[in-house]
Amino acid sequence: MEYSSKLLENAVYQMSQLPGIGKRTALRLVLHLLNQPEDQTSDLAKSLLKLKEEIKFCSNCHNISDVELCEICANPKREKDMVCVVEDIRDVMAIENTGQYLGLYHVLGGKISPMEGVGPQDLTISPLISKVRENKIKELIFALSSTMEGDTTNFYIYKQIKPYNIKTSTIARGISVGDELEYADEVTLGRSILNRIPFEGSLKAS
Amino acid sequence: MEYSSKLLENAVYQMSQLPGIGKRTALRLVLHLLNQPEDQTSDLAKSLLKLKEEIKFCSNCHNISDVELCEICANPKREKDMVCVVEDIRDVMAIENTGQYLGLYHVLGGKISPMEGVGPQDLTISPLISKVRENKIKELIFALSSTMEGDTTNFYIYKQIKPYNIKTSTIARGISVGDELEYADEVTLGRSILNRIPFEGSLKAS
Repeated sequence: MEYSSKLLENAVYQMSQLPGIGKRTALRLVLHLLNQPEDQTSDLAKSLLKLKEEIKFCSNCHNISDVELCEICANPKREKDMVCVVEDIRDVMAIENTGQYLGLYHVLGGKISPMEGVGPQDLTISPLISKVRENKIKELIFALSSTMEGDTTNFYIYKQIKPYNIKTSTIARGISVGDELEYADEVTLGRSILNRIPFEGSLKAS
Repeated sequence: MEYSSKLLENAVYQMSQLPGIGKRTALRLVLHLLNQPEDQTSDLAKSLLKLKEEIKFCSNCHNISDVELCEICANPKREKDMVCVVEDIRDVMAIENTGQYLGLYHVLGGKISPMEGVGPQDLTISPLISKVRENKIKELIFALSSTMEGDTTNFYIYKQIKPYNIKTSTIARGISVGDELEYADEVTLGRSILNRIPFEGSLKAS
């Protein structure tokens, strides 16, 4: 595509650097902004810059937070010795929405992925190991997505904390509530049969 | 959704104001920017602000342009007395890509839409009428999308220029009614320009 304006071309190019946004969508978004009052563009630009400049992370769980210790870590009602390992803030929000978990989190900030050049040193793994070493954690729950990268990261952390002999668990993989058995994939169905739980236990959960 | 950070919440809110971007997608985009080098966010923000501040429009066709007279209007090889009426720059780019059209354009900047509060005075209709009145145009080609708003706009312009008795035409609809110009394939769009029909004929047909 040839643009009649370098300014426009540059804005479209920058917008199309976002994931899942192609050149066409980028052009649509930029033209939309052009048709809106000037406030909207500057509000968007400023909020992004401000976030990037002033972003803070909780000193304990490394989740995005405006204060030194995030609301969850500062809550006296949460069980401080139970820690759930997640990838990013979206996972924290998803688990919080269930209202079923009362422990703390540890946000890794990603998964180990040699393909994308993400190594253990790019994640918050060493603060997690420190917490385990200092005997602050009784149970560690792995809740990373079960992809190749997620499994690799789980295993890397597991190897490092094994000497300290704390309880570890991983969230149950199985058929979604309400799903038909016949449409489930074989791996998930297989795991949900192998990891079956006592019938009485399943009643309590719901 | 509850966010652990007001800064994040604000950035997500601003991002979700863009068309077709919901809260979830906005969060994904903002988190992506957080994981990228700082340059990317500031480049994006700056390019949007710069575009919004410094945007210029061609004094003749009203297309987005960095200079007073856009490349198309300034090109001595284009037929200056043939003008194609389009909605915005995307339509100009789509028609230019066909390589089938050698006249000029007139970019309206939208369509008459009482629902969205867009009236004739919000579009560049009066400069178009002036061009017709000053006898600068021999043929006017209507190439707005054939929606209710497009037809209304066509008809509004047609009524105003009728006294001047110039040739009018509308691009042939090999393209299905209701589809947007920018998504049409080049061959169909190119043919529909070559096979344009008199405006009166198009009224009878619908």
